Parts: sequence; C-alpha cells; structure tokens
Amino acid sequence: MVARAVLVTGGARSGKSSFAERLALGAGREPVYVATSAAWDQEMAERIGQHKARRDGRWTTVEEQLDLVGTLARHCGPDRVVLVDCLTLWLTNLMLADRDLAGETANLAAVVPGLAGPVIFVTNEVGLGIVPDNAMARAFRDAQGRLNQELARVCDRVVLVASGLPLLLKPSSCPDIQL
Amino acid sequence: MVARAVLVTGGARSGKSSFAERLALGAGREPVYVATSAAWDQEMAERIGQHKARRDGRWTTVEEQLDLVGTLARHCGPDRVVLVDCLTLWLTNLMLADRDLAGETANLAAVVPGLAGPVIFVTNEVGLGIVPDNAMARAFRDAQGRLNQELARVCDRVVLVASGLPLLLKPSSCPDIQL
Amino acid sequence: MVARAVLVTGGARSGKSSFAERLALGAGREPVYVATSAAWDQEMAERIGQHKARRDGRWTTVEEQLDLVGTLARHCGPDRVVLVDCLTLWLTNLMLADRDLAGETANLAAVVPGLAGPVIFVTNEVGLGIVPDNAMARAFRDAQGRLNQELARVCDRVVLVASGLPLLLKPSSCPDIQL
Repeated sequence: MVARAVLVTGGARSGKSSFAERLALGAGREPVYVATSAAWDQEMAERIGQHKARRDGRWTTVEEQLDLVGTLARHCGPDRVVLVDCLTLWLTNLMLADRDLAGETANLAAVVPGLAGPVIFVTNEVGLGIVPDNAMARAFRDAQGRLNQELARVCDRVVLVASGLPLLLKPSSCPDIQL
Repeated sequence: MVARAVLVTGGARSGKSSFAERLALGAGREPVYVATSAAWDQEMAERIGQHKARRDGRWTTVEEQLDLVGTLARHCGPDRVVLVDCLTLWLTNLMLADRDLAGETANLAAVVPGLAGPVIFVTNEVGLGIVPDNAMARAFRDAQGRLNQELARVCDRVVLVASGLPLLLKPSSCPDIQL
Repeated sequence: MVARAVLVTGGARSGKSSFAERLALGAGREPVYVATSAAWDQEMAERIGQHKARRDGRWTTVEEQLDLVGTLARHCGPDRVVLVDCLTLWLTNLMLADRDLAGETANLAAVVPGLAGPVIFVTNEVGLGIVPDNAMARAFRDAQGRLNQELARVCDRVVLVASGLPLLLKPSSCPDIQL
C-alpha cells in the first residue's frame, strides 16, 4: 500500500492545525497525534492546552521533540493516520539542541516516501515579513524555508491555509508555466 | 434580500484596500466607507490622508473606532454597500481600549449573516513572519488570526490579495481535499 | 516581437529564485542573470555564493545595484531571457543611496512593456508579518508593496511561490469577482 503524505502550511493562527485535524479525522483510520511542542514557559503551556482541549478521545497522542524519523517509523501503519504538529516547533527544538538542521531536514524528507502509512505534517510560513533584526531569527527562517521546500517535494499534496481556508499548492493548478 | 459579505485579506501595501474599493464601486449601489483608523500620530495621519485622497465624492464616510456592530446596523441597507477598512485597526483600537477581543470578534461574526445589505471587510494577514519578540505582538497576531478565521466562516466570499492581485479562498477551489 | 514579462514573488527561502531560474532555462534562449545584491557583509557574501554555486556556465552574469532601467535596455533582446534577482535588494540599495523610491519604481514599470526581449523579475512579499517597530522598516515595506503592485500591473504573468510551489496570480483564476 502506498503511503500518502500531506504538508499543511500557513501563518500563525491561520487555522492550519484545525484543517489538518479535520483531514486526519476524515480519513477513516486510527488518528495518531505527534506533538513536537515543549512546554518551556507559561504561554507555551497554554497554547498546548488549547490544542489538547480541541482534540477528543479518538486521538492517540505521542510526544516527541527531536526524533521524528524514529517516531514515524514506530507509529505509521496502514490502518492509521499520523499527524505531526508541527515541524516549526521540531525545527526550533533542533536549533536549541544545536543539531545539524540541514542534515535533520534531509533525513526526514528521505524517509517520507517509504512510510508504512499516511502522514500529515503541519508547518509554518515564516518568511513573508520584513527581514528580522537578529541573526538567529534569520538563520531560523532560512532553515524553515528549506525544510518546507524539501518536505513539499516529497509530499503528494501541499495545502496553504489562510484565514482558515485552503489553497492547493500541490498538485499544482499551474503546472505548465512557461515564458 | 440576502445580504452578501466579502472578506478581503492580505499583507500591508498589498493592494487590498484598492481591490475592495473597486469591488464596492462596481456593485451599483451607494458606497459607504467605514473608517476604523485613529490618527494617533503623524505617520498614521498621512496614511489616512492617502486613503481619503483616493476615494472620490461618491463615497459617504463614517468614522468608527470601536462599535462596529452598531455602525453596521445603522448603515447597512439594501441600496448600499458598506466597506469596512479595516478590521486590523479596529482590533488594534479594541486592544488599546482593553476590550475582550474574543468576545468582540464573536459579536461581530454573529451579526454578519443578518445585515440588511452587502458588506466588504478589509483585514490583514499578520502571522507569516518570524515569531515577534514581544508578548503583546504575539497576542495581537493570535487575536487577528482568530478574527480572520471567524469572519471568513460567515462571509460568502474571501479573497487574498498579493501584489495587487486576487486569489479566491472562498468559495474554495479545492473543497474536496482528502487523505 | 512582443516582450514577455514575469514577476515571481514570495517569502524569504520560498524557492522563488530556483523557480525563476528553471523558468528562464526552459525558455530556449541565452540566459542573462542580473544580480542586484551587494556583498556588504559576510552573511550576504555567503548568500550570494550559494546563489552563484547553483547557476552553471550557461548563464551570463551582470552585476547592477542601482541602474536597472539602463541594464535592461543594454541586455534585453529577442534571443535572450533576462532574470533580475531581486527587486527587494535593488530597492534596499536605492533606499541606502537615498533615492526617490516612488520615482524609481515608476521609471522601471514604465520601461517594462517596451523591452526588446523577455524578462523575469524576482521580488519578495514582506508585508505579511506584524507591523515592524522601526519606521525605516515600515517605510521599506510600504515601498516594496507599491513596487510589487506596479510591476505586477505591467507584467504578463505573476506567480507567488510558497514552499517551492507556484500559485498563479496573473492571469487571474478569479477575474470576475463581483459583489
């Protein structure tokens, strides 16, 4: 059975997590939620609480902050759908742990086509504001942009969510653009 | 007669106000402009002046910084089209006045389906940059994201403007995304 | 022969340069790369190096930081395709040189329809984050937004790239939006 992979991208509070959750719940499979967030302060703990409150008992929740490749290997399967929410927090965790972001990105993209069941990744667009003042923020948005491009390449479908509504990026509605 | 509601969203200087004005003027109705901006400094006064200079004598202008629900009740009608420019400044005004942003958002969304005539809302996408350093900016972009999602839900049409050009978010061009 | 002009816009690290390069190389013409970047620090020098490393010997590279109108006049031609990467750095250079941004924008837009051959412009969307704290950043995003709108008006095609994938803004997929 061919695994199917979807990337759901968008801005903060764009409704991308809700969209991804509806997509997962509509798949008629056992939904597994992979939470990449770490409750490193009060504000983050509240955000996690809001996300949890929205999900109901149907979900199995797995927490993993760094080893996404191993987690997908363990939890993907033909009767399940795995939702990873989100790649931006995963990348943040990797950066704080001083990991090789390009290498981790390549490793994740490499395993996606061979997963044993369908997966949905939630990620953020962070590069459409003014250039950030500090170098670490610039490095992060570069790494996030590259991650999004690499994941989009190996996913079957890519959706950009804005104001809670989806725009289909892949398959492309304009595949034949020429000069 | 069924009221029609349109949400026009996009980044700063994306051409969303111009797009919304053309939409309003093309409707063959008396156009009413609801300005939510407060001229709290020189820069803001200049922006307001630029917007005013672009509009001509056909428009009736109403200024309202907080009570959008009451303003819509008073000015919407079957022979008019009301343009609200913009929800981001309205939300800013509410935040500065220490109002309950979630409650105000819910109240506004609740009245939209029952308005006596068509309305166009202009709003901003503010969540596609890097996470802001300060907590108030993060709280604002959360509130703005939720407002956009709630308004998008009750509007008949939602348009994302970029580089002056529209992308249709609702009705969706990809309503049937499944895993 | 009618010149054809394309505007490729998107966020930082969205894949817009790669997309524009593939478009240029697929045109069956001699590709000319107009680099507007100045290597004003180590980080910028590395970014330029990465872009250069991706381009191969097929490209003729021209460096021009300010006089884009003259450069296009000299290098455009019926057997060539000129890629300008990017308008955001050009605008930055103009701002640092204290030029009239609105005037330079108007001058560039004015010459596009009469160029002797096809051209592709790469630009950035910078207005979808939270309002920047400092006035110069706000002035820049205003100027960038206006530049994007003016160029979009004179280009035949406008493409928004996100996560490496294109969304067609022009010709519009929703030209007939009405109230």
